[in-house]
Amino acid sequence: MNPDFPLKAYLDERKALIDRALEDFLPAGGSDPPLILQAVRYSLFAGGKRIRAILCLAAAEAVGGKAETVMPAACALEMIHGYSLIHDDLPAMDNDDYRRGKLTSHKVYGEGVAILAGDALLTEAFRVLARRKSLSGIPAERILDVSREIAEAAGYQGMVGGQVLDIRAESERIGMEALHEIHRLKTGALLRVSLRAGAILAGAGEAALADLSDYGEKIGLAFQIADDILNVEGDPALLGKGTGSDAARGKITFPSLLGIDASRARAEELVIRAVASLFSFDDSATPLREIARYILVRRS
Amino acid sequence: MNPDFPLKAYLDERKALIDRALEDFLPAGGSDPPLILQAVRYSLFAGGKRIRAILCLAAAEAVGGKAETVMPAACALEMIHGYSLIHDDLPAMDNDDYRRGKLTSHKVYGEGVAILAGDALLTEAFRVLARRKSLSGIPAERILDVSREIAEAAGYQGMVGGQVLDIRAESERIGMEALHEIHRLKTGALLRVSLRAGAILAGAGEAALADLSDYGEKIGLAFQIADDILNVEGDPALLGKGTGSDAARGKITFPSLLGIDASRARAEELVIRAVASLFSFDDSATPLREIARYILVRRS
Repeated sequence: MNPDFPLKAYLDERKALIDRALEDFLPAGGSDPPLILQAVRYSLFAGGKRIRAILCLAAAEAVGGKAETVMPAACALEMIHGYSLIHDDLPAMDNDDYRRGKLTSHKVYGEGVAILAGDALLTEAFRVLARRKSLSGIPAERILDVSREIAEAAGYQGMVGGQVLDIRAESERIGMEALHEIHRLKTGALLRVSLRAGAILAGAGEAALADLSDYGEKIGLAFQIADDILNVEGDPALLGKGTGSDAARGKITFPSLLGIDASRARAEELVIRAVASLFSFDDSATPLREIARYILVRRS
Repeated sequence: MNPDFPLKAYLDERKALIDRALEDFLPAGGSDPPLILQAVRYSLFAGGKRIRAILCLAAAEAVGGKAETVMPAACALEMIHGYSLIHDDLPAMDNDDYRRGKLTSHKVYGEGVAILAGDALLTEAFRVLARRKSLSGIPAERILDVSREIAEAAGYQGMVGGQVLDIRAESERIGMEALHEIHRLKTGALLRVSLRAGAILAGAGEAALADLSDYGEKIGLAFQIADDILNVEGDPALLGKGTGSDAARGKITFPSLLGIDASRARAEELVIRAVASLFSFDDSATPLREIARYILVRRS
């Protein structure tokens, strides 16, 4: 870790900025908002870390752009992440009653409205990307490219495809290769495109974009391994949910295939390689380097 | 009806064109396609009439554009319609086992995969809209405008919002005003934007766009009333599903509030007004006029 970089303050400040921007896109809507808006807001403001949005803003800055210029894309990414959590928690998927210490959407609003709240967030992400005033000053062609890349990362070629593999894996004894593929699609694709979106919108060149994509792939997997490790030995109070659920379900994870120590070593190696991907960047990429290192020490 | 216009041949030919374009966007993918792609294709090619896509193409032609130019937008609209049917049929919503004489997605693939197949189709719609080669020759700003309008019509401000109102209405004794609002959002918004998308992409002026929007609102409601009537007295063999399900569920519909005769009169009036909205269009709007009239005589 770089002791001169105030990572915690940086993450807190960024999260507050992003929450404010999301609030502007999806305001509460008066004293009696429609039920669907209540449900959408319940999940979107349930206390996420906004890591995808933070990566999007940081990638824009790493290539010389401004964070505020790409904020609508950062918000769109958080909406897509939020939709995926609502649908993943449904009884037909992971059947989780709690997330971050709060009841999940379907426990509060019922399954039908929860499914629709996810649908609404996904749709809203593409509305936000397409609003003319959202990304003003950025060429429309570039916005379309980002919209397409985000759709690819989120759709059947990416996140949704990964979730289907994950559902099927519950009844199969999968190996390391299949586990990699699930994570690459289910969580890696959206993390990677978060960096690419920020960089593309800020006008990054091909080389910088390739480096940031590499970085994204590596921290994506490291992040997932760290998540699996936290599910084994994390602090339920800090996580806002119980641990041991993967093992109880017999779920195949990095710790279950490799053991805890080898999993941790793998995550460390990925973080080192992620930071190395940013070799040709100057100090403007410091936050990205520190975020990568933070994956190894985070507690929640 | 205009006896010189071969409406049936027109609709059949258009449906075949649209199915072919959809097939190009979502090809079967070899001998062992991923499960998610199988599920997406199962519902997308389950025999829909493609009315939204047909309206999109016809609106482009009515303002002097070419159908093939706006085909990707037409396909995106069918993908969104397809996703909405998969999610509407889920046990947590309408709980339908059959649609168009085929088992619904969740009966074939299970609820989890069905939810994800809907998610994938919705996401794919925005990917198709954003692909550079999709709508080549059309200014990117115009494509973004259409993408935003489609997202608004599909999202919590439109279709999804209408579906939430519909779920709630099942436990309430709603009146005519609430019924209108449900239909305006749940089915009207997407039909209206189908026309607007085609017209905007083809470079329509404000006046033509306003006329087509009027037309879309009126046929949207007429279409829904006709659907309600078919649910009372349609031919199950032609519909591919049973009739009487609305009454059995105690669902509030136009026939239940107004009776069959007054409902039919209302639909006829809406169709006359829809055709009148196209007063300033020339013969290039003939298909739109005939489609409006067809609503009153269709059997499925």
